Amino acid sequence: MEKISIADKMVNFMESASWIRKMFEEGARLKKEYGQDKVCDFSLGNPDLSPPEAFQETLEKAAADRSPGVHSYMPNAGLPGVRDKIAIQVAKDHEVEPGGDEIIMTCGAAGGLNIIFKAILNPGEEVIVPRPFFVEYHFYTDNHQGRLVPVDCNDDFSLDISAIAEAVTDRTKAVLINSPNNPSGAIYDEKSIEELARLLERMDKEKGQTIFLISDEPYRKLVFSGYHVPPLMKHYKNTIVTTSFSKDLSIPGERIGYVAVHPEVHHKALLLGALNLANRILGFVNAPALMQRVVAEVASQKVDTSIYERRRDLFAEILTRAGLSFTLPQGAFYFFPKSPIEDETKFVRTLQNELILAVPGSGFGLPGYFRLAFCVDDEVIKRSEDGFKKAVEKSLSWTRA
Amino acid sequence: MEKISIADKMVNFMESASWIRKMFEEGARLKKEYGQDKVCDFSLGNPDLSPPEAFQETLEKAAADRSPGVHSYMPNAGLPGVRDKIAIQVAKDHEVEPGGDEIIMTCGAAGGLNIIFKAILNPGEEVIVPRPFFVEYHFYTDNHQGRLVPVDCNDDFSLDISAIAEAVTDRTKAVLINSPNNPSGAIYDEKSIEELARLLERMDKEKGQTIFLISDEPYRKLVFSGYHVPPLMKHYKNTIVTTSFSKDLSIPGERIGYVAVHPEVHHKALLLGALNLANRILGFVNAPALMQRVVAEVASQKVDTSIYERRRDLFAEILTRAGLSFTLPQGAFYFFPKSPIEDETKFVRTLQNELILAVPGSGFGLPGYFRLAFCVDDEVIKRSEDGFKKAVEKSLSWTRA
Repeated sequence: MEKISIADKMVNFMESASWIRKMFEEGARLKKEYGQDKVCDFSLGNPDLSPPEAFQETLEKAAADRSPGVHSYMPNAGLPGVRDKIAIQVAKDHEVEPGGDEIIMTCGAAGGLNIIFKAILNPGEEVIVPRPFFVEYHFYTDNHQGRLVPVDCNDDFSLDISAIAEAVTDRTKAVLINSPNNPSGAIYDEKSIEELARLLERMDKEKGQTIFLISDEPYRKLVFSGYHVPPLMKHYKNTIVTTSFSKDLSIPGERIGYVAVHPEVHHKALLLGALNLANRILGFVNAPALMQRVVAEVASQKVDTSIYERRRDLFAEILTRAGLSFTLPQGAFYFFPKSPIEDETKFVRTLQNELILAVPGSGFGLPGYFRLAFCVDDEVIKRSEDGFKKAVEKSLSWTRA
Repeated sequence: MEKISIADKMVNFMESASWIRKMFEEGARLKKEYGQDKVCDFSLGNPDLSPPEAFQETLEKAAADRSPGVHSYMPNAGLPGVRDKIAIQVAKDHEVEPGGDEIIMTCGAAGGLNIIFKAILNPGEEVIVPRPFFVEYHFYTDNHQGRLVPVDCNDDFSLDISAIAEAVTDRTKAVLINSPNNPSGAIYDEKSIEELARLLERMDKEKGQTIFLISDEPYRKLVFSGYHVPPLMKHYKNTIVTTSFSKDLSIPGERIGYVAVHPEVHHKALLLGALNLANRILGFVNAPALMQRVVAEVASQKVDTSIYERRRDLFAEILTRAGLSFTLPQGAFYFFPKSPIEDETKFVRTLQNELILAVPGSGFGLPGYFRLAFCVDDEVIKRSEDGFKKAVEKSLSWTRA
């Protein structure tokens, strides 16, 4: 056989991801055949709200700035003035007092996670993650020779601390959480964070090694009435936070976010040095200069989350009427209902026949569920009701047969 | 001993790079002690010219665009309309006819090289590079478990094809060139590119495996009178080009560039798929959206290179009068003179005593030389003459002693 000219691993990755690609291709085909407006596309977590007015105004001002050096190289961690302002936001979110030195501006949270893993992982070291989880985590750990170790959550997608405790080994380097969670919409409450913090402190001592708590929190500001994302750094000093402005400000194409480390994190100087070096040598070099300046001015802003909340409530009624069961999302913009049949991929295909696009839970480490993103007009949600009903009926008829 | 909480490799990297850091710290100390305007800093390749007016105008227009989705997610390879325009520029530079599908927008050339190596390298595979070379290449190959194999150039920094031929093994995956070269300022002429292409074609057949020619060419447009950077794709079909707009447009902080593959490259669909996937999973996701739109409109523009040429000529006279020998740079903005003493690090320290900052050739894989970046005002170059003379005299006095 002819020798493949690219990396074998990448060939494998592409093959194993081909079912997702086929599903997206089928979605594109349906849109072409039946018309964009006939298909209810809940497959993409691409924020549809416009960025806040403050973002627009700040962007225009920043673009008009012709001072020398505004587009020049800078320290790999980002512009000092920007990092100082971001530190103020981190202080509010996490109830500790980091300085600008503890902030590294990144190309979004995806860039942030990659530099964190590059900085901390030795080959074969493990990162524990509660499932369901964002599918890319597998790649991000593998990029740096680490290994992702998924553990179960409770049935309502809250943290199962004992499951995490059981998964800790001598190779455990970090626990990675994502709250509000993609895809479940769950927020890990403060009690569970405290328990997790106590567990990690105990393990740090027992194992004689640091286990980092890594928080990937791009949905921190997208929370619904009555909920709140608790501070993490307040409870555990070996915490590394990464986030992006993609969802807060509806600007995912601009790739801007940051990594923040606890001011008392273990081996802080080494860790910050490694994160800086990782940002440089992975090819990010620094986060985009112009967008750094913009987000520093609007770091506390966010899109109108009441719109997402209205859609959530609307969607909850429709899914309930269709006979689907789910845990009500507390934040982010996803439902993660249980599939009425065990093979959720089959159910997702049944939805496709009704012109509804969803993503199977297998893609998030949890088969038997499926994800619906509500970054769409209310009208699309309303229009989907009949399709959901028909798909559920059809699926249940197979179960009865 | 207490267990280090970060990756061992990163600790080693930081330790081995500490001499460069110390050198930069010493430079910063000198500026503080003697005043910014007393120190002649030739250590940084940070373009000092303002971006072209067309860039500024396009940026302001793009920032004012409030159309829905302008800051949204997009295909990992970038905006289709942007890629079509970039393809036109690649066609001019490389005398083949790629389409937009053969372009992947990246976070600069550093991002470009990382996704290329991620896409093509199996563990232990080798990338041949002529020395001197950009120091980061070591990291970029190592990130993806590859190995950089430096080979000598001729004395005038032109390509030594036979040295490259001798370095090819069964593990060779690519030859990486950078022309105009950082740090030597050399341009590899068309004859040598043709010879290299014939060599690679022969090796492809002999070894039964593809050897890619990777061209890192951020200085392609920064060339001096009488020189021209030859097309590469025209001569060899397994060519992958990466570049950035950092130097052409003086916007290195914005991290925008691209990867282009030859329209007839081996296993094209697989390669493009792998490059896309690499862009996604390394955490770049896509190049910054706003800057993509801007560079698409000004892809043929560049800063006024006559300024760099004037400085080169001025600097050449000064270095000659100081008794230093060098090959005249044909492009980019660096001199790479021979150190008057064997230990160029010692000479660079002697220059520091004269308040002149330079980078030792060891940092570019070629001890015995040192790099001077002329991204500085003419005045700084003029002011340095006495310092160079004194440092050379002092060094030669040691040789005579």
